[in-house]
Amino acid sequence: MKEFHKINLLYDFYGSLLTERQQNFIELYYGDDLSLGEIAEQFDVTRQAVHDTLKRAEQTLGTYEEKLGLVDKFSKEYRSIEEALHLIQRYQTGLEPDGLEKTKEILESILKNRQEF
Amino acid sequence: MKEFHKINLLYDFYGSLLTERQQNFIELYYGDDLSLGEIAEQFDVTRQAVHDTLKRAEQTLGTYEEKLGLVDKFSKEYRSIEEALHLIQRYQTGLEPDGLEKTKEILESILKNRQEF
Repeated sequence: MKEFHKINLLYDFYGSLLTERQQNFIELYYGDDLSLGEIAEQFDVTRQAVHDTLKRAEQTLGTYEEKLGLVDKFSKEYRSIEEALHLIQRYQTGLEPDGLEKTKEILESILKNRQEF
Repeated sequence: MKEFHKINLLYDFYGSLLTERQQNFIELYYGDDLSLGEIAEQFDVTRQAVHDTLKRAEQTLGTYEEKLGLVDKFSKEYRSIEEALHLIQRYQTGLEPDGLEKTKEILESILKNRQEF
């Protein structure tokens, strides 16, 4: 997974646990694609300060994921749901006669994993 | 939602963010159904100390949910996936001719909500 995409995904899950300033910088840097220099100017701080704040924020997000593992878990589910949708479509076009049974297995497996979570 | 079930669900998501002692007490009290007195004896602390630790742990779990809202979000998804499964079964028994279309809508809606998350 690309670093950019990974940070955005972690931020979607855990962003509200960061400080307001960390959230601002992450959104501007990763969301709006501003440069470190542009953010520094906007907040009247050094480029190094922006860099350090971003690094700390990324570390914090990474630590939450290490502990909770929710991004990993729900990314896997996301792919399973995509697969289920694909199987229904293939069943409907006659390409996958077992498609509905496979879809049910996938959905049952998601529910089962959640109960064990 | 019953308090007991709610705490267990919050603990499933955010438990690893609690201190080790908080985790121990929650598991013994909510998971193994020990009494405050039994936990107090086992850890050689007062019944009041067990009570206070549990309350603080519950507050912490509640605060994480207020900020992140993941339990609420994924409980809703869980019910949607159950509904999707039910619809496929009804389609297969001829009770719901639109079942597959409805299932696809539900699954697409889950994927869409996640992208916007």
